[in-house]
Amino acid sequence: MSRNDHSTVAGSRAAMVDAVLERFFSLSKKRAAPLGAHYEHLWGLLERNTQGGKRFRPRMVMAAYAGLGGTDMDAAAYVGASFELLHTALIVHDDVIDRDFVRRGIPNISGAYRDHAVDRGVAVDIAEHRGVSAAVIAGDLALFNAYRLIDRSGVGSPMRERLLDVLDEAMFASAAGELIDVDFSIDPDMPLVDDIVTMERLKTAVYSFETPLQAGAILAGASEDTVRTLGDFGREIGIAYQIVDDVLGVFGEEEATGKTTIGDLREGKRTVMIAFACSTPAWARLCDLIGKVDLSLDEADEARSLLIACGARAFADDLARGYANRALARLAEPHIPASLRDELHPVAETVLKRVR
Amino acid sequence: MSRNDHSTVAGSRAAMVDAVLERFFSLSKKRAAPLGAHYEHLWGLLERNTQGGKRFRPRMVMAAYAGLGGTDMDAAAYVGASFELLHTALIVHDDVIDRDFVRRGIPNISGAYRDHAVDRGVAVDIAEHRGVSAAVIAGDLALFNAYRLIDRSGVGSPMRERLLDVLDEAMFASAAGELIDVDFSIDPDMPLVDDIVTMERLKTAVYSFETPLQAGAILAGASEDTVRTLGDFGREIGIAYQIVDDVLGVFGEEEATGKTTIGDLREGKRTVMIAFACSTPAWARLCDLIGKVDLSLDEADEARSLLIACGARAFADDLARGYANRALARLAEPHIPASLRDELHPVAETVLKRVR
Repeated sequence: MSRNDHSTVAGSRAAMVDAVLERFFSLSKKRAAPLGAHYEHLWGLLERNTQGGKRFRPRMVMAAYAGLGGTDMDAAAYVGASFELLHTALIVHDDVIDRDFVRRGIPNISGAYRDHAVDRGVAVDIAEHRGVSAAVIAGDLALFNAYRLIDRSGVGSPMRERLLDVLDEAMFASAAGELIDVDFSIDPDMPLVDDIVTMERLKTAVYSFETPLQAGAILAGASEDTVRTLGDFGREIGIAYQIVDDVLGVFGEEEATGKTTIGDLREGKRTVMIAFACSTPAWARLCDLIGKVDLSLDEADEARSLLIACGARAFADDLARGYANRALARLAEPHIPASLRDELHPVAETVLKRVR
Repeated sequence: MSRNDHSTVAGSRAAMVDAVLERFFSLSKKRAAPLGAHYEHLWGLLERNTQGGKRFRPRMVMAAYAGLGGTDMDAAAYVGASFELLHTALIVHDDVIDRDFVRRGIPNISGAYRDHAVDRGVAVDIAEHRGVSAAVIAGDLALFNAYRLIDRSGVGSPMRERLLDVLDEAMFASAAGELIDVDFSIDPDMPLVDDIVTMERLKTAVYSFETPLQAGAILAGASEDTVRTLGDFGREIGIAYQIVDDVLGVFGEEEATGKTTIGDLREGKRTVMIAFACSTPAWARLCDLIGKVDLSLDEADEARSLLIACGARAFADDLARGYANRALARLAEPHIPASLRDELHPVAETVLKRVR
């Protein structure tokens, strides 16, 4: 399949997921309207929060499903939409935890509520409280309905129960990973590289790669071996993706990544690169720069040079490459059909391409 | 059935619900342990958060179920436990919204985390952030698993779908009510009595009375008429309960209610009594007292006298009595069997007894 074909297929799958979500939100808004104008408005904000994404997780569901011979793409779109709502719930609540009012430079739910209230003359701290409250509620609704959408997919027992078990696994792991990440941000000591990899796996790889792929496989009636292998692939490519994402969070180009390349440095975010650097002599200087709230552009450049010089960047790149290659090897296993390899190879390649 | 028999039955039903929750938390803690000591600890805190309650909502499920001839009390206990987890999720997130670190004078999840961190030398604001973060995550886990427990009850389709619809209704309404309540706390204008009743219904009555009763009825295979009537009964008795609860929040005896009788006055909580008082000449003085953060005990007494003198207390009592009596009338309808009347009459009587 050509790269253009892949884009077209990905686009039409995303469109199917969009249609499921549109229907869901349309029904929810109608249902909400009699219970208050603000409540209807909240659902509208939640809908807007789910729009414009790349639908990555749903596409993982559908790639595994199609690659294993699945043909009921409607059911797959429902399951995919379920993971998209789970993703929405997690990032909305993540922003509550971090007291963030913007995401990727745009007001999130808290931010939209806060700004709206401030425009109407409400004091900032009160407006922020309202925003955070709305975000807690909105995240709850998204989370509850992630579960609901699996039920609404029309899938029968026992497949339904297996899908719900996988969604449960996604939630359970994400909560564990989020808690570890919160602990990292509070603990003055630097975690080990292994601990960070564990956190990245639990917080992101499980719900973004492993479980969507497994859900797609289960939906397609795949064997236990295949489901397990897809989970392994998802774990390894997911970890690779996160490591690379953190490298780009310091070294990337902002237009390409959509994120600033100074934010993580100023926050002192615990990443594989930073944990490695902490074990080198360069840390004597780096520890003054990493986590410096008002880090200047020049100081950021200095930090980047040190991270390269002490081998931290190369270490992270190598680690990511190792995980990505292990993931690719999974696809070469005998019980993985060619059609599934065709679907998932590009995913692994995309990650590898982001590694320098 | 004598009052002693009622207590015994209620006690044994609560014990069955406790057993379901104990099993659930035991499994969850075992599952959590490999993902981090703190994660296992979080599950332990969540479990502790669900203990010690009166199991009111599960008892509503089981009362309706038993009163309609249901005999599989194990299944009813699962459905009841589901509502108890929903309740836990809502109060945990309510405390996040209000940034409360104690509930009924005891540290809640945020408080327990915060205090633990402070004891270990962590700065208070950082410790509070960690506490709030843990509470967001814990609430998410409780919410997700409220849904799960219905599935784990062993109930088959289509009853399972109807139970999940009812749980969905509980979540949907609670979110709407919580949002209205947040708006109340921010809006400088006083809402109408009708608006407060609507909020109390959505925020509390639906998930505490209406839907648990309906779930029990559905589980017992009751007719649509019976399910609807139980919903009506639940709405009316739930509203009565909330109105009385708010009256006791100002006039009650602290040992009896377990709540302070100055908190609501200092907070300026929007209640039926306060909304009514706002429409009387007494508001000219009351508006200086209601919402006064440092209201003294003497000033609180003055406020109470004014609330009585202007008729606000009597209005609230009458309104509650009216709802409670309407609820009792529902139980007299022909399609309500005597066994169900026997189960639910005491609930209505308990509410009426709390009205002066």
